[in-house]
Amino acid sequence: MLGVLGGLEAIRTLNDLGERTKHPIVLTTFTNAEGTRFAPAMLASGVFAGKHSQEWAYDRVDADGKRFGDELKRVGWVGDEEVGARKMHAMFELHIEQGPILEAEGKDIGVVTHGQGLRWIECTVTGKESHTGSTPMAMRKNAGRGLALITELVHEIAMKNQPNAVGAIGHIDVYPNSRNIIPGKVVFTVDMRTHLLDKLNAMVAEFMERAPKLCEDIGTEFSCEIVGQFDPPAFDETCVSAVRGAAQELGYSHMDIVSGAGHDACWINDVAPTAMIMCPCVDGLSHNEAEEITKEWAQAGTDVLMHAVLETAEVVE
Amino acid sequence: MLGVLGGLEAIRTLNDLGERTKHPIVLTTFTNAEGTRFAPAMLASGVFAGKHSQEWAYDRVDADGKRFGDELKRVGWVGDEEVGARKMHAMFELHIEQGPILEAEGKDIGVVTHGQGLRWIECTVTGKESHTGSTPMAMRKNAGRGLALITELVHEIAMKNQPNAVGAIGHIDVYPNSRNIIPGKVVFTVDMRTHLLDKLNAMVAEFMERAPKLCEDIGTEFSCEIVGQFDPPAFDETCVSAVRGAAQELGYSHMDIVSGAGHDACWINDVAPTAMIMCPCVDGLSHNEAEEITKEWAQAGTDVLMHAVLETAEVVE
Repeated sequence: MLGVLGGLEAIRTLNDLGERTKHPIVLTTFTNAEGTRFAPAMLASGVFAGKHSQEWAYDRVDADGKRFGDELKRVGWVGDEEVGARKMHAMFELHIEQGPILEAEGKDIGVVTHGQGLRWIECTVTGKESHTGSTPMAMRKNAGRGLALITELVHEIAMKNQPNAVGAIGHIDVYPNSRNIIPGKVVFTVDMRTHLLDKLNAMVAEFMERAPKLCEDIGTEFSCEIVGQFDPPAFDETCVSAVRGAAQELGYSHMDIVSGAGHDACWINDVAPTAMIMCPCVDGLSHNEAEEITKEWAQAGTDVLMHAVLETAEVVE
Repeated sequence: MLGVLGGLEAIRTLNDLGERTKHPIVLTTFTNAEGTRFAPAMLASGVFAGKHSQEWAYDRVDADGKRFGDELKRVGWVGDEEVGARKMHAMFELHIEQGPILEAEGKDIGVVTHGQGLRWIECTVTGKESHTGSTPMAMRKNAGRGLALITELVHEIAMKNQPNAVGAIGHIDVYPNSRNIIPGKVVFTVDMRTHLLDKLNAMVAEFMERAPKLCEDIGTEFSCEIVGQFDPPAFDETCVSAVRGAAQELGYSHMDIVSGAGHDACWINDVAPTAMIMCPCVDGLSHNEAEEITKEWAQAGTDVLMHAVLETAEVVE
């Protein structure tokens, strides 16, 4: 059996052509890949890959307190087959890049060699709330400066670990967040990613060593906790080669690429040979009403998907 | 007529002693000095000093849309005397420092020579919202870095204009403020203060020149608007001398100080000779449940207030 994500047009074409394969081809979609209603993302594929227990997944609740398991039952999506029992010979996932590289490089196809590993580090800088007017500079404990110094530290660490390393702070809460009060506390989350585990761990270690000192130097305190982590997957070399070969054979321009976002394929990769194909998206936009791809990009992606799948499923002559 | 803020004990002592003065002594308090319910602060003293028209002040509304003028009427605080008609010979205001200097220096009395002028500069750094994982470092337009660089710029400008110059960012809104999205926009307010107008203008000019370049260098855009301003008052030399002389004569330790916060005295200073006396407060805390002063500090402050007032009101032998 061979799972395929996304290539509906490809499957129809196979039937039209009367092609038969040694391994059956299954088109699948995993529930709650995005995690927008029930955290975490990639919930069902995580259960399939043995990352979460089924009961734990069922117990996830949405913002209204509704259980994932109850809602599955309500919409009729609870099956009776044991999760993970249907072993995959291989899996391919087709996805938009969700980033700007392919479009900028003018490539039709991204051959995904790795996913990025991730660490989310929730940080708190504690200073002292005080009056912006009457507190002399030398007596300030400005937690906002801690945020500023750490923002630049994260950037510096990502830059010196190029290529395929990124780092930024997206979520920031300032207390008390008043125009005339020096921030007494800032809570924010550092997002660091790269595609090699050693490099990822080294980036985090450098951060953990330098961030407290930066804060101490300005009279503030630093504490942090890892609130999200995901080790980088390296996709199966045979499957990756099948994708690269298909793109090459079909004459599509292509490049190797690292996936910056998490995907079901990153979990499935642990239990079956897996690879991903990416197609460009306009302006790198994703998770956004303006997300868009061209028909030509979609066609190239499904074409490569079909050929990589056929090679792996072994066409019966 | 001589206005006095705060010295209730002093007035009782005068009556007890049967002291008489050439200029009558009036104890007064100005409505809405803090501005917590109706913005701006120092609203009534601003009308008294001709900074705002009475009608404009009446039209200020609170968070529930209630007019200041209507609420004054409701609580019976609308008088029938023309505002500002009662001319002052001089005015003294006694206040806690709201900062940590006097306590740290071990001084009983702060002789306030100047108030600080203020500029509130509301800034917007515009970058581009994008995925923290899939956007390569070189393609980012991270508005959070704009905030970081400007936080340090404000600090640098304040530090090189010492003494009596301050700068910080207290209020920060990050958009969309999500762990896995690079900030596309950050809106924040820079608070800059110092006690000399030329220096204040130079600080703002340097900020306006350098902030846009810092943002441009990282691919973001900068815009700003001055949303609050207050030129620095220099208090009346004769009144300030009366305060310093009283502290000296009474044997209280004292130092000249610049008020970091706005006060009614800063407005009244434009229409009558004015000075301020400050007493220490615990840990510099103010606008906070934990705000505290000792009895001894309060006593020294009122003692100096009484003697400065008596000298200015001219005791009739």
